[in-house]
Amino acid sequence: MARADFRLAYPMRVRWAEVDRQGIVFNGHYLMYFDCGITEYWRAIGTPYPEGLAEHGSDLYVVKATVEYQGSAEYDDMIDVCVRVASIGRSSVRFAIEIHRGDARLVSGEVVYVNADPATRKSAPVPAFLREAIARFEGHAPVG
Amino acid sequence: MARADFRLAYPMRVRWAEVDRQGIVFNGHYLMYFDCGITEYWRAIGTPYPEGLAEHGSDLYVVKATVEYQGSAEYDDMIDVCVRVASIGRSSVRFAIEIHRGDARLVSGEVVYVNADPATRKSAPVPAFLREAIARFEGHAPVG
Amino acid sequence: MARADFRLAYPMRVRWAEVDRQGIVFNGHYLMYFDCGITEYWRAIGTPYPEGLAEHGSDLYVVKATVEYQGSAEYDDMIDVCVRVASIGRSSVRFAIEIHRGDARLVSGEVVYVNADPATRKSAPVPAFLREAIARFEGHAPVG
Amino acid sequence: MARADFRLAYPMRVRWAEVDRQGIVFNGHYLMYFDCGITEYWRAIGTPYPEGLAEHGSDLYVVKATVEYQGSAEYDDMIDVCVRVASIGRSSVRFAIEIHRGDARLVSGEVVYVNADPATRKSAPVPAFLREAIARFEGHAPVG
Repeated sequence: MARADFRLAYPMRVRWAEVDRQGIVFNGHYLMYFDCGITEYWRAIGTPYPEGLAEHGSDLYVVKATVEYQGSAEYDDMIDVCVRVASIGRSSVRFAIEIHRGDARLVSGEVVYVNADPATRKSAPVPAFLREAIARFEGHAPVG
Repeated sequence: MARADFRLAYPMRVRWAEVDRQGIVFNGHYLMYFDCGITEYWRAIGTPYPEGLAEHGSDLYVVKATVEYQGSAEYDDMIDVCVRVASIGRSSVRFAIEIHRGDARLVSGEVVYVNADPATRKSAPVPAFLREAIARFEGHAPVG
Repeated sequence: MARADFRLAYPMRVRWAEVDRQGIVFNGHYLMYFDCGITEYWRAIGTPYPEGLAEHGSDLYVVKATVEYQGSAEYDDMIDVCVRVASIGRSSVRFAIEIHRGDARLVSGEVVYVNADPATRKSAPVPAFLREAIARFEGHAPVG
Repeated sequence: MARADFRLAYPMRVRWAEVDRQGIVFNGHYLMYFDCGITEYWRAIGTPYPEGLAEHGSDLYVVKATVEYQGSAEYDDMIDVCVRVASIGRSSVRFAIEIHRGDARLVSGEVVYVNADPATRKSAPVPAFLREAIARFEGHAPVG
C-alpha cells in the first residue's frame, strides 16, 4: 500500500540505542514502533489506551504479530508508522501497519488483538462503540 | 510441539525492565528472546554468529518474523527459548521457536533469514557447510 | 534549574514498552532519553552526531553518567528533555540534563563525554570548532 | 575493587540488541545490567524482590544512579555483574556495582534506593530484617 492509504501516519525518529552493529534497527524494535503507532491510533479515534477502553469495560491483548522486512531504518532516520484497522472479527481487531521512510516502505506487518474483559482476561465481543469509532475514522467498516 | 522436540532450549530469566504495566513481558521483547535463542543455536552447531558465517563469506538478514501469544511471561520467570530449523530453502533458513515456562508454552513463532553476501547484501544460496552443520545438529536435513 | 534556563528542550512521549510494573518508566531508560536529547543538541549547534564530528576527526565516548530521580514519568506522558553543556574541560564535555513534565522536574543528571580520536579511541583536546559552536549556542563559553 | 571483594557476581551474556553501531553496549543498558544484578542480590539474601520486601510492608525506589565507564562490553561477551551493599542510611540503601569481563573492570557505579511505604511511597526507615539480612550476607554491617 501507499502511505496515502493510511489515515494515520505517526512520525518517529530512530534512536541510537535502537540501532545494532550492522547500523540498522534491531528487528524486534519494529514491534515497539508498531505499538507506538497503535497508541496514536487509539488516541486519534477518541479512545486513548487504556482508559478509553477501560471505561467501557474493555481491554486488548496481542495474540499475533507479524513483521516483514523489505528495508532497514538507520540511526536518526525519520520514519512514518502507518496504521489502519484491516479487519474486525467477533472478538478481534487486526491492524495492518507499514513503516515508511520518505517514499520507501521499509517494513510491513500485522498485529492482531483480542478484546477481553479486563478482570477475567477472557475474550469478549468487540464492543459496538469501538467498531463505530473505527468505522468513523477509517471512513468504512472493516470486516473480518 | 513439546519442548523435547527441540534440540536446543536456552534458559533465560525475565528482567524487570522487560515487563510492562500489565505485569507481563512487552509483546515486542519476545523477538529479542528469539534472537538470543538463535544466537545460541549458531553457537551450538559450531558457527557462532557472525564470525562463523563471515569466514565462509556469508551473513544473514531477517526477512520475516511471526509471534503468536498463547500466554505471558512475567517478572523473574525462568523461561526456555526452544529453537530449531524448520526448513531451508534455496537462500533462506526458517527457524521455528517456542517459549516455554515449565510445561506451559507461552509463545510460538518463526523467524526467516535470507543468506546474503555481506558486501552486497544480495541474497545467495545457503552454503553447503551451513546445511550440513544444521542437518548434523538436528539429526536430519530440514527441507524447504 | 528551570526549563527556561535551557536553550534546548526536546519533547518526547513515554512509550508503553518503557514503563514497568510499578507504572513508571524503568530507571535505566532515562539515560536513553538523555541520549536522545543530546542527539538533538548536536543537531541544534550544527554538528549532527556522528558525521558533524567525524568530518573534523573527532568522536565522543561517554565516561560518566549520573541520574537523580525526583519523580517518575508515566505511560503516555509528554516530557521535555532539557539539555545544556555545563562545562568543557581539556578533552571532556559535560552535559547537564533535566527531564520535566510541565512545571515539574522529574529527573536531573549529567553525562560526561571525552573527545577522542575515532581511530585510536585515545582522548584528544576538545576541538576549537566544537567549543565555538557550543559557546555560540549557549550564548557564553562554558568553562571546566 | 577486585571481583573477589564481592559476595555476589551475576554472569550475563551481552545480547545483539544491546550493542550499538560502535559495536559496544549502549551506555544506558548498564543500568539494566545493574538492575539484574540487584535482583539477584535480593534473592541471595533471602528476600526476593518485590515479594520478600512487600510481606514486611516495604518497597524500594531508586533515587540516584551513577555509572562510570572504563571499558566497553561487546556482543556475546560474558560479563559479571558484581554487587554489594556499600552503605545503609536511615532510609536508604546504597549499592556499589562493578561489571567485569574476565580480569578487566569495564564499568563501575552506584545505585541508591530509598525504602518506602508501598502505599504512600513516603520514605521510611530501613527495616531491621533487611539490615540483618544484608549484614549476614556481607559478613559485616555496612554503615551510612
